Amino acid sequence: MNLVQILYSLDLFGTVVFAITGLLAARRKQLDLFGAIVIAMVTAIGGGTLRDLIIGVPVFWTQNDIYIYVVVISTVAFFFLARYKRLPVKMLLFTDALGLAVFTVIGTQKAMELGFSDPIAIMTGIMTGVVGGVIRDVLVGEIPLVLRKEIYATASFIGASLLLLLLHVGIEQDVAVITAILLTVTLRVWAIMRK
Amino acid sequence: MNLVQILYSLDLFGTVVFAITGLLAARRKQLDLFGAIVIAMVTAIGGGTLRDLIIGVPVFWTQNDIYIYVVVISTVAFFFLARYKRLPVKMLLFTDALGLAVFTVIGTQKAMELGFSDPIAIMTGIMTGVVGGVIRDVLVGEIPLVLRKEIYATASFIGASLLLLLLHVGIEQDVAVITAILLTVTLRVWAIMRK
Amino acid sequence: MNLVQILYSLDLFGTVVFAITGLLAARRKQLDLFGAIVIAMVTAIGGGTLRDLIIGVPVFWTQNDIYIYVVVISTVAFFFLARYKRLPVKMLLFTDALGLAVFTVIGTQKAMELGFSDPIAIMTGIMTGVVGGVIRDVLVGEIPLVLRKEIYATASFIGASLLLLLLHVGIEQDVAVITAILLTVTLRVWAIMRK
Repeated sequence: MNLVQILYSLDLFGTVVFAITGLLAARRKQLDLFGAIVIAMVTAIGGGTLRDLIIGVPVFWTQNDIYIYVVVISTVAFFFLARYKRLPVKMLLFTDALGLAVFTVIGTQKAMELGFSDPIAIMTGIMTGVVGGVIRDVLVGEIPLVLRKEIYATASFIGASLLLLLLHVGIEQDVAVITAILLTVTLRVWAIMRK
Repeated sequence: MNLVQILYSLDLFGTVVFAITGLLAARRKQLDLFGAIVIAMVTAIGGGTLRDLIIGVPVFWTQNDIYIYVVVISTVAFFFLARYKRLPVKMLLFTDALGLAVFTVIGTQKAMELGFSDPIAIMTGIMTGVVGGVIRDVLVGEIPLVLRKEIYATASFIGASLLLLLLHVGIEQDVAVITAILLTVTLRVWAIMRK
Repeated sequence: MNLVQILYSLDLFGTVVFAITGLLAARRKQLDLFGAIVIAMVTAIGGGTLRDLIIGVPVFWTQNDIYIYVVVISTVAFFFLARYKRLPVKMLLFTDALGLAVFTVIGTQKAMELGFSDPIAIMTGIMTGVVGGVIRDVLVGEIPLVLRKEIYATASFIGASLLLLLLHVGIEQDVAVITAILLTVTLRVWAIMRK
């Protein structure tokens, strides 16, 4: 797989993971299947949508149906699965960490490739990683997680910065991407384990 | 009246209706006239604004002043009317159903005409129909109605899907539009009556 | 200083002031430094971001890094300052009034220069002035200030209208801008003092 394929696979993986965190939030509030799909959708595509609007490119999911299908199918599947089997919430926190890392790095890279400066690319990366979760939490009436957990957006910030640093010192793009993702995941996982 | 004129009339009607649902939410929270206008405005134009941003066309109300005038005038009129006369809340639920139907169909058609695929056009239609109400509910501190009433966005989803189905099998556009609107309204009204 | 320089200086001043109102809201909710930066950022750049998306121009802070630096630096500085010294909340209410006035006038002028009609320019001005604060209040779980204080958005509305009126009767642009800002500030300050 080349870099584009790797990022695309990770992007779809992140979409599934964030959809499931949306489903879990919906279940905590006793929402039905449709409410769960709505929450899952905004969680999974909210950050990337705002990113694309702000950097002025076509919104990603309007160019490729697969994101919508992925969100609907994985939400429906896990909705019914959750009736028969307790979802492993702890494991989901870890996959959520991977989602945050992937979305941050994808967002940062997308802005950088369009020629935006480093601070803008970092802002864009953080937004891609955290905004979906912010809307999810606001919709279910909670103060957003990102505001309550210091190491959440901080991990996103450090991951985005590291990506740009590695690229500026001449590291190959696929190595830089993987390294930045791994560092972001590690920071989040460390923060989760520490509690 | 041709199709464009029918849709435009219905669009303005939907704008009035959604403005009034915003006014009612504002009154439940004892907001003053200005707060009511703000809530009415976002309820009436929020969905279409997000739709236009996402499909990449100029935001509709920036191209035609009438939407702003319609929201302000109908909110002010009903604000003072409500002091002397109890608003018929039940009847408003039914007109809200018509607003949802009209906005859904307009949103779906707009995206379809621009060449977006069916799932994207359906997403766009649902967004146009429900996002204004979501922002209204978030602003007044409630969990959005669309998350609590299964048949709300489901009606929107079915209406948008039916419109595309009818067009794909070759039904004339104005017949398809009216049929899709009527089905959406009927579903919502049935859901309201069932309670 | 010419008009462009005056507006730019005022814009940066408004950015600092709104960032600090975000910091204060974050402190009331016991958020840590990172949460405070997130809230300060959306408060300071939220209104202008939505304005630029809606009028279809590049989002201002993606074209000029300084806004992000200004928000981060002033939030960090005041975050630590607030540990040693009680922030003068009353004085901040007055500077917030100046922020509202400046952002309103800048937003109105930007839309007008792009050729939008008066009602659209007024809407755009109000949005620029109030939306950042609305997002701030929603994120910390409060009903937005603008909905609870009649004279807040009303001051914004009057300031935007006065600017357009003065320009239409042929007043020079820099005089019109300063006059509209002063009137908006005066209205807000009067409303604060009246309590």
